[in-house]
Amino acid sequence: MEFYSTQISNLIEQLSKLPGIGAKSAQRLAFHIVNLPEEQVKSLAGAMVNAKAKVRYCKECCTYTDNELCPICASGQRDHKYIMVVENPRDLAAYEKTGKYEGVYHVLHGAISPMAGTGPDDIRLRELMARLGKDVDEVIVATNKNLEGDTTAAYISKLVKPLGIKVSRIASGVPAGGDLEYIDEVTLYRALEGRTDM
Amino acid sequence: MEFYSTQISNLIEQLSKLPGIGAKSAQRLAFHIVNLPEEQVKSLAGAMVNAKAKVRYCKECCTYTDNELCPICASGQRDHKYIMVVENPRDLAAYEKTGKYEGVYHVLHGAISPMAGTGPDDIRLRELMARLGKDVDEVIVATNKNLEGDTTAAYISKLVKPLGIKVSRIASGVPAGGDLEYIDEVTLYRALEGRTDM
Repeated sequence: MEFYSTQISNLIEQLSKLPGIGAKSAQRLAFHIVNLPEEQVKSLAGAMVNAKAKVRYCKECCTYTDNELCPICASGQRDHKYIMVVENPRDLAAYEKTGKYEGVYHVLHGAISPMAGTGPDDIRLRELMARLGKDVDEVIVATNKNLEGDTTAAYISKLVKPLGIKVSRIASGVPAGGDLEYIDEVTLYRALEGRTDM
Repeated sequence: MEFYSTQISNLIEQLSKLPGIGAKSAQRLAFHIVNLPEEQVKSLAGAMVNAKAKVRYCKECCTYTDNELCPICASGQRDHKYIMVVENPRDLAAYEKTGKYEGVYHVLHGAISPMAGTGPDDIRLRELMARLGKDVDEVIVATNKNLEGDTTAAYISKLVKPLGIKVSRIASGVPAGGDLEYIDEVTLYRALEGRTDM
């Protein structure tokens, strides 16, 4: 892209390496950034460098935090006897937004995937097992409802059940507002299998 | 989002201010950035600050550049008698990618829009007029094919024609590979109006 200046080309190239940002979006973002007031650009750039420098894993649940413990693990308001296992911090955020879960979390940072070469040692399973020595009533497995998530759930169940701790899996079925007509067969089948008494 | 660390929340907030990046994408980008090697984050952040600090308007055509003149205006290979007027540098880039245009450009940085309160003085029209003193054969108006672009084209035509310089407008019609069945009425009508002899 020699018709752009070197600086713009460099910025576009850097931006287009980010996930979900193609060549066109990178171009649009670059021009937007060049048009921003200088202090806004500095504050965006600074936020990146700061987040990278300061953020680490929570000592308990392995989510991202800038303290020893994340706000949830540090909270006395949460029920530490319930541990919900999720694949990544975005899933944790999704459940937090429901406002209905009062337990704590454990973030695996991935799921077991023989296809992708991700084994049990590549995700934060050891850290989960280490937490179970303490007073834990239930491990709720909220990994994704796909092959990797299901494999991971089965693996966790096998490890945790022998310790005498209850293991559960979030329900699979028709989503709220879902129109049966447009739902795939696997989901419909799972909704039937998982039917509950009325 | 108190369940994230302050640094991550701040980064998410900054990212979600960018155009086309919603709350979910900002979250995904933030986690991606935190996972990048430190020098990559620094180089992305640096590219932003550098581009903002160094980039300015080309003295001739008003596109972004980090020199006095952009590579196109500085080039002896281009035909400086043809000036294509575009709304923004992305449109310039789009035409450059065709590889078929050998003239130079003029970037307006906007279009006349009474609705948005953008008048002729708010875009780089004065700079265009200043260039027409020199040896110019044709002004090719390649503003967008919408109300604002058409208004701007008409305005430019009215200003430039009295100087005895040819003014043309890029063709409107059915796009390459376009299936007539799926093309809107205005485009079909314009394609008919603009029909050429075979």
